Amino acid sequence: MRILIIGAAGMIGAKLTARLLDSGALGGTAITALTLVDVVTPRSPATSIVIDTAQVDLSASGAAEKLVEARPDVIFHLAAIVSGEAEADFDAGYRINLDATRALFDAIRDAGDDYTPRVLFTSSIAVFGAPFPDRIRDDFFTTPLTSYGTQKAIGELLLADYTRRGCFDGIGLRLPTICIRPGKPNRAASGFFSNILREPIHGKRAVLPVSDRVRHWFASPRTSIDFLIKAAEMDGDTIGPRRTLSLPGLCATVAEQIEALRNVVGSDAVKLIDREPDPTIDAIVANWPEDFEASRALELGFQAEKSMEEIIRVYLEDDFAAADAA
Amino acid sequence: MRILIIGAAGMIGAKLTARLLDSGALGGTAITALTLVDVVTPRSPATSIVIDTAQVDLSASGAAEKLVEARPDVIFHLAAIVSGEAEADFDAGYRINLDATRALFDAIRDAGDDYTPRVLFTSSIAVFGAPFPDRIRDDFFTTPLTSYGTQKAIGELLLADYTRRGCFDGIGLRLPTICIRPGKPNRAASGFFSNILREPIHGKRAVLPVSDRVRHWFASPRTSIDFLIKAAEMDGDTIGPRRTLSLPGLCATVAEQIEALRNVVGSDAVKLIDREPDPTIDAIVANWPEDFEASRALELGFQAEKSMEEIIRVYLEDDFAAADAA
Repeated sequence: MRILIIGAAGMIGAKLTARLLDSGALGGTAITALTLVDVVTPRSPATSIVIDTAQVDLSASGAAEKLVEARPDVIFHLAAIVSGEAEADFDAGYRINLDATRALFDAIRDAGDDYTPRVLFTSSIAVFGAPFPDRIRDDFFTTPLTSYGTQKAIGELLLADYTRRGCFDGIGLRLPTICIRPGKPNRAASGFFSNILREPIHGKRAVLPVSDRVRHWFASPRTSIDFLIKAAEMDGDTIGPRRTLSLPGLCATVAEQIEALRNVVGSDAVKLIDREPDPTIDAIVANWPEDFEASRALELGFQAEKSMEEIIRVYLEDDFAAADAA
Repeated sequence: MRILIIGAAGMIGAKLTARLLDSGALGGTAITALTLVDVVTPRSPATSIVIDTAQVDLSASGAAEKLVEARPDVIFHLAAIVSGEAEADFDAGYRINLDATRALFDAIRDAGDDYTPRVLFTSSIAVFGAPFPDRIRDDFFTTPLTSYGTQKAIGELLLADYTRRGCFDGIGLRLPTICIRPGKPNRAASGFFSNILREPIHGKRAVLPVSDRVRHWFASPRTSIDFLIKAAEMDGDTIGPRRTLSLPGLCATVAEQIEALRNVVGSDAVKLIDREPDPTIDAIVANWPEDFEASRALELGFQAEKSMEEIIRVYLEDDFAAADAA
């Protein structure tokens, strides 16, 4: 089995690569080749599987066609301009998140030879826009309030139509906000959800810019990779024509995050959180979804963490040592 | 006030043109110029308003930029490749329904001078895909089962995002199926809904390919023009960031259509309907929406016909004489 990961240098891409290499197989079939591409050259891990890495801008002319030349059986399309950047740069957002996605889909469609790979497309809960019901149903409409959310919603529509027409076998995944995201604190508006846990775990201070009452929707990096693998392995017929799933997550308040930090790491860690209310971030976060039913994905067997304590323990098991050594 | 109608040669475009010329104003402001474009040159009515007609393929390079040069205050974007054609010709559907729409939106965005016209975009109930609830709520998700529906759903998303970013002031309208559509019987899968009324009204036979129990969602051509005019005149702030409305209509069965024909025209007309079940059309129609709540549009004052008898009378008043003379 040949696998292509577009956007392999990102956090999810790197963890997905590691998981695939660790298992050496997908859906019971041995992985024979793995191609890792991103706008920066992804790191090539040491392995017996043939790995090909390349620096590729998917939006460049001919780039998508070149990527599908080797006829990968499974394509993970993780590449995207993130929310803040897509909002700041209208053209770049549409070029990468819409045009490059469509170029990939068209390249697969035009490849010939009845080539119909499984395509995994990471969408986002940003396809939803406030106001929301208490829990977002699977059949709730997508009225995004950002260009990023708009571009992801368009990607979902294209994925479903190209799949319906037999161009490929696509599945879209709306991942919860990933927590605890490893690495340095970043300036993403959602960064604090991870910062207030990760930084104190490492004995560092972290800023909490919103109220303790803010609720949001979380899954660990490990669970997010589980989602991608499970979706890659599943029978496409079980999902039907509605090809994008809102995935399960944990609905938790910031207060519950802090309490979990106290329970798992201790009260000293909690003291490292500095409350610095930021009305700008508060206003952005107020437009974010808080809770989902995710009924279809649950029925299909997708499962997320059940507590914030569990999410913290996943970080301690998967990312703490590497981060502490760095 | 300067008005541009793209897709002016179609049935809706022609009726919209006639209505605008009849009133001579939109939202209380006199119309000073009317530009009518389509892939075939629209007919230029005799009027004191400056009318400019042109044959324009909106998907051609530079075409959209040229159309916005005159800075129309209101743009009706009605142009589309219809459902069957978009399904038969993948590339033409995406080129006209997606790329040309985006080209228009980009041309407005790039026009400069704080140019922010009102843009009316005719979407479709084809953005919805079965299975449906008994009545489709305003917040029901868009999971189209045709490329046409996909392209319209993408147009809606772009319209909302470009509006949110201040590029223009857009409103999308999901029109019910138009009944009674004037003209000759056509081969559109939905054609029979009009054919079984219009043809017998003119003493001609018509084919009914589906069961009497089929339910669908209707508005007259006159009401559809009312919708477009009202949307063009309304204050954009009242609609908020969710820029596309599912419009009110009449939910009626084929049996109710036939009964109304008997009530308005007589039993002899009903005898002109030939029942010729067509499993292909039956299967297509089974995937179509039947009923909508249309709560937001009703609250905003949009109103449709309340009975099929009323819809038939509108045809007799607006289109019968011209069709009979033809």
